[in-house]
Amino acid sequence: MAHTIKEKAKLLARVRRIRGQAEAVERALEAELGCGDILMLVASMRGAINGLTAELIEDHIRHHVVNPDADPDADRARGAAELIDVVRTYLK
Amino acid sequence: MAHTIKEKAKLLARVRRIRGQAEAVERALEAELGCGDILMLVASMRGAINGLTAELIEDHIRHHVVNPDADPDADRARGAAELIDVVRTYLK
Amino acid sequence: MAHTIKEKAKLLARVRRIRGQAEAVERALEAELGCGDILMLVASMRGAINGLTAELIEDHIRHHVVNPDADPDADRARGAAELIDVVRTYLK
Amino acid sequence: MAHTIKEKAKLLARVRRIRGQAEAVERALEAELGCGDILMLVASMRGAINGLTAELIEDHIRHHVVNPDADPDADRARGAAELIDVVRTYLK
Repeated sequence: MAHTIKEKAKLLARVRRIRGQAEAVERALEAELGCGDILMLVASMRGAINGLTAELIEDHIRHHVVNPDADPDADRARGAAELIDVVRTYLK
Repeated sequence: MAHTIKEKAKLLARVRRIRGQAEAVERALEAELGCGDILMLVASMRGAINGLTAELIEDHIRHHVVNPDADPDADRARGAAELIDVVRTYLK
Repeated sequence: MAHTIKEKAKLLARVRRIRGQAEAVERALEAELGCGDILMLVASMRGAINGLTAELIEDHIRHHVVNPDADPDADRARGAAELIDVVRTYLK
Repeated sequence: MAHTIKEKAKLLARVRRIRGQAEAVERALEAELGCGDILMLVASMRGAINGLTAELIEDHIRHHVVNPDADPDADRARGAAELIDVVRTYLK
């Protein structure tokens, strides 16, 4: 995991944002905010988790399977690039 | 929101568990655990968010739309019960 | 189900579009198109199913639970309108 | 696409099942079945699409990126196997 310092910092920033969103939902429940507002907070937390997941999978492909920008085998590099596109489409 | 003390306690327990899962992902990233392990932690956090969402929507239906166990209109009560089943199916 | 003629026509148009998308995926597999292209067809079929689901749930709420535009109880009407917004957010 | 005759046959069987499910939803709408029943048909069609997607992505990884059962580089083979596990977890 955490393949470059920059990637690690980005992933940590994402997960800390999700923790902050969970804390906001907790405060909203304690303050008995409206259901609709709480559900919108939870929906945005779910979106953030999808974004984190897509980035983790992309980093995994690049560092532990095939890096599309560096692999000497052009077919394999293209296959990995397509795979990253698919992951982004499904988790956006 | 938070329609009965018991429901509020259950929702708070769910969201605190999600916050704890976010903290576990953060520690796993800092400790540079394997990608596969981190992705499994994130997948279980996503499952917990789906569970929280389903419970919030169900509580919203019961308290702000139609309570299937108490509505005097039998058709409407059945419609609300079916709706709760559908929400559970889609978010399980 | 199928609460007004207009709604029924819209739902049928959506499901026929999904059937057409399944047929396009079938032809693409038979013609041995690239994986990336086939996965994009499948992703758009999944989006169409989410749209159909959201419309079915919205129609169900309007006709079998509470119609937010016609219910005499203002709180319940607002609760149903919020619920429809949530369903759209989660399935868009 | 369609990397072996056996895989192609399995994918075609999956997509034909999805087309059949779309036809069943169409008939159910025309016959004005209950909303709850129609939504359950649509939910099972969505499950079938997730299964097709997972299989397409897995076949893509095996044939166009890295085959975990045949790659001479053990680290890369393990990375690809973990990736396939993650895809199955997210799309099951």
